[in-house]
Amino acid sequence: MKLAYILFNDITLLDFIGIYDPVSRLKSMKFIPDLEWDLCSFEEGVRDSFGLEIKTDKIRNDLSEYDAIIIPGGLGTRKLQFDQEFISWLKTAKDVPLKISICTGSLLLGACGFLKGRKATTNFQEYEALKKYCDNVLEVRIVDDNDIITAGAVSASIDLGLYLCKKWSGGEAQDQIRKRMDYHG
Amino acid sequence: MKLAYILFNDITLLDFIGIYDPVSRLKSMKFIPDLEWDLCSFEEGVRDSFGLEIKTDKIRNDLSEYDAIIIPGGLGTRKLQFDQEFISWLKTAKDVPLKISICTGSLLLGACGFLKGRKATTNFQEYEALKKYCDNVLEVRIVDDNDIITAGAVSASIDLGLYLCKKWSGGEAQDQIRKRMDYHG
Repeated sequence: MKLAYILFNDITLLDFIGIYDPVSRLKSMKFIPDLEWDLCSFEEGVRDSFGLEIKTDKIRNDLSEYDAIIIPGGLGTRKLQFDQEFISWLKTAKDVPLKISICTGSLLLGACGFLKGRKATTNFQEYEALKKYCDNVLEVRIVDDNDIITAGAVSASIDLGLYLCKKWSGGEAQDQIRKRMDYHG
Repeated sequence: MKLAYILFNDITLLDFIGIYDPVSRLKSMKFIPDLEWDLCSFEEGVRDSFGLEIKTDKIRNDLSEYDAIIIPGGLGTRKLQFDQEFISWLKTAKDVPLKISICTGSLLLGACGFLKGRKATTNFQEYEALKKYCDNVLEVRIVDDNDIITAGAVSASIDLGLYLCKKWSGGEAQDQIRKRMDYHG
């Protein structure tokens, strides 16, 4: 299984690292030993809202090769949803079998047209903003609509990561990973 | 107030980003508008256990200038606690008025001799390892020993971040930041 994390300027890093931590443990704790992932971005040198810089693995690469894409949120999504070049790149993930977002990452899924006729959630401050892309915005922490899974704001990223641990490797894997993280949310 | 985050190879990124998110919001939500921080490391190009690379701001800089140092944990601490060059650098923080660690970051505080005669905590799997540096290892999530504050494993980083929000800016700031993060841990 190969994942693509979609990173961008003005990302909220906890949206990303919250899911990255438990999901990466599926590999290090050998539940999915061959799990792989790339950090993908449209521009080189991705920085969060405070200037922290992360090096990405792939720039503007074809996203169709992945088994899942994971899109965190952050202030950057407010502009990127209207950036046609960025959205065109993200649309190369059209046939990826699992599309995942955290927080306002759902606005980017929406701008690609991936949420038409689907149910999804987002940051609790952005429910209205998501409605232009999605007929059925649910005000809950995680929405699993089969090939599209969306989560709420910031710390919901951890819950989504643990949710995926259970979905992909079962409840025992989820329990062991939760304990290792000492997470009680 | 100026903080130093101490980053190193084989860091656990959620240990770092868990505290970084709420503490950074003290600045962006204007509770402490002049809050500043540097990402400091002994080596250039810090990578987590999975190869994710973060660019740091300062390399081997004198840490005595900061108001607080914050040391996350990770597998890297197991070796670094015995790395005399690294520990010598960290000891430049000797007179920093507030020393903070998350998870096994406490082993590094301990290796500097900062925990002699003090109380502290660490990752629940490393209580024994910390005892060689610290007389009073408490098996709890956060230990506030005035100028030394230590937290337990991984996700305790978020709780520690919110704890500091209250300590530095009061309960109302903590509440507002917790809500923005949608955190219920």
